[in-house]
Amino acid sequence: MREFDLIQRFFDRPIRQRQVRLGIGDDGAILQVPEAHELVVVTDTLVEGVHFRATDGAADLGYKALAVNLSDLAAMGAVPVWALLNLTLPEANENWLGKFSDGFFSLASQHDVALVGGDTTRGPLCVSVTAGGWVPAGQALTRSGAAVSDRVWITGTIGDAALALALAEQSPASTGSESGWLLDRLRRPTPRVGIGRALYGLASAVIDISDGLLADLGQIVVASGQAGALIETASLPLSPAAESYPLEDRMTAALTGGDDYELCMTVPQAESHRMRRLSEETGVLLTDIGCITAQAGITLTRAGVSIPRPNRAGYEHLWPVIEEGGS
Amino acid sequence: MREFDLIQRFFDRPIRQRQVRLGIGDDGAILQVPEAHELVVVTDTLVEGVHFRATDGAADLGYKALAVNLSDLAAMGAVPVWALLNLTLPEANENWLGKFSDGFFSLASQHDVALVGGDTTRGPLCVSVTAGGWVPAGQALTRSGAAVSDRVWITGTIGDAALALALAEQSPASTGSESGWLLDRLRRPTPRVGIGRALYGLASAVIDISDGLLADLGQIVVASGQAGALIETASLPLSPAAESYPLEDRMTAALTGGDDYELCMTVPQAESHRMRRLSEETGVLLTDIGCITAQAGITLTRAGVSIPRPNRAGYEHLWPVIEEGGS
Repeated sequence: MREFDLIQRFFDRPIRQRQVRLGIGDDGAILQVPEAHELVVVTDTLVEGVHFRATDGAADLGYKALAVNLSDLAAMGAVPVWALLNLTLPEANENWLGKFSDGFFSLASQHDVALVGGDTTRGPLCVSVTAGGWVPAGQALTRSGAAVSDRVWITGTIGDAALALALAEQSPASTGSESGWLLDRLRRPTPRVGIGRALYGLASAVIDISDGLLADLGQIVVASGQAGALIETASLPLSPAAESYPLEDRMTAALTGGDDYELCMTVPQAESHRMRRLSEETGVLLTDIGCITAQAGITLTRAGVSIPRPNRAGYEHLWPVIEEGGS
Repeated sequence: MREFDLIQRFFDRPIRQRQVRLGIGDDGAILQVPEAHELVVVTDTLVEGVHFRATDGAADLGYKALAVNLSDLAAMGAVPVWALLNLTLPEANENWLGKFSDGFFSLASQHDVALVGGDTTRGPLCVSVTAGGWVPAGQALTRSGAAVSDRVWITGTIGDAALALALAEQSPASTGSESGWLLDRLRRPTPRVGIGRALYGLASAVIDISDGLLADLGQIVVASGQAGALIETASLPLSPAAESYPLEDRMTAALTGGDDYELCMTVPQAESHRMRRLSEETGVLLTDIGCITAQAGITLTRAGVSIPRPNRAGYEHLWPVIEEGGS
């Protein structure tokens, strides 16, 4: 199959976005950025054997490769508009490609995201998606604006993806309704696009929870030049499926598990009522779980009493370091 | 080595572009698009064993991964501004990373391109670069505007990269000055950024020659809804190094060799004098090699007499097709 035919057949779909002046098929794509807006770009790579397994479903992979990028755009407060797909494939398996592209476009169409270009190459399976969106000039949300006593809020429930990962490793064919729900949380995370764009002038800092709450909240603390934060663990929003796990397991998952792709944000205390109203208006669970502190480090409490941190701090991207001589 | 440290050490360099409001270190990058301009985005992936070999120099790879993208931006008439780098690595080899980033930034700094983000992951060596730039609204160059009797022009010399590839396969350690020059053309192609942005209102269609002149000019013909083109082979601009090869070898390389990253453009006949002036002003060789025709297919002539096409049409991205049953 020629690259051209592969793209035509699986990836060149009608584009409704009027801001896309030119999509797939030329040397590049041309986009109109609305006046008084800025461009936000994000990118993420998923590699077989690291982020997913060869046996994982192609449709889920197509969905997730886009979802993790839309989550990053949400964390910046941007409205997603376009995406590029770099797909490295060992072979042109038509069945696999059909499912992959269906998964990708099922999420893309939910948010009216246009696939405007990319590259298909031969090699070990690897998917990079780059996504772009607009934000009113000067309104983008970053990790660096948190102030002492700002409340820490999170969307949805956390720990689900980590519990699902353990489940998938133990019994990949789990079909019970609770297991199925958990596995869906891992394989088809919901990017919080609607919440992200509603946080202009409300949140002081935002990040998406991809590496675990402790690790990602730690990023906000450091980027904001603050000392620490306090998390009241009894407030952590857990799903009914997660609640069925032993306390230590579900707490470790909620605090250190990656891949949930919920948003964690800091909001001035005086704005708490607006957060509650936002939750009511959008139907998305928003929970106040703690605050930014002048005290150093991230402190955990249970019903106000300090408790120790789990041993595992969060997902760390580690490489063995090879040092070589020579110039 | 943690991902954070790797990025800080090798890729987080000072950014001078004022249009970059936020670079590496958050969930996404924020860019200011100048008023009355549009955004052009391009992306390309290089995979070990397909586009380069494990033994190729890391600095050349870093340079080329960016160069092929800047070439795409040039073909759209866009001014490059920012880039994202998705780097999948089997290990954190500090020596390799130092060279790779030096190669990347040596080209980036030439064009004042800011590296504003990316992703580093573990896996088989693979490099995707996405680049963005601006173009005055409505002025982007595409493949689709060529008209019958428009002249076909190309930048620089062609066939060098194909001859270098054969050379590298036969004797990778070639150090003669001509061999060295040819290998440099393959490993460090010059994106024609200055020419690309000078073609507004001058060229009717543009493409960069990545798959070979016949294949890429064919793309212009098809995208423009034209029947064909004529190439006068005696006019093809060859380098002194290429001239030392037998006629058939150098012609095959010039017509079908990929990877030269020169621009091929169509220009109304009445504008030929402006092309000659552009060549004088920029010091970039611009050569009129033929024209768009009402006659179907791409015709080759030598001193006006029709000659046959080489057997090989150009670089084709082919996969074995796997068809499977199931839903």
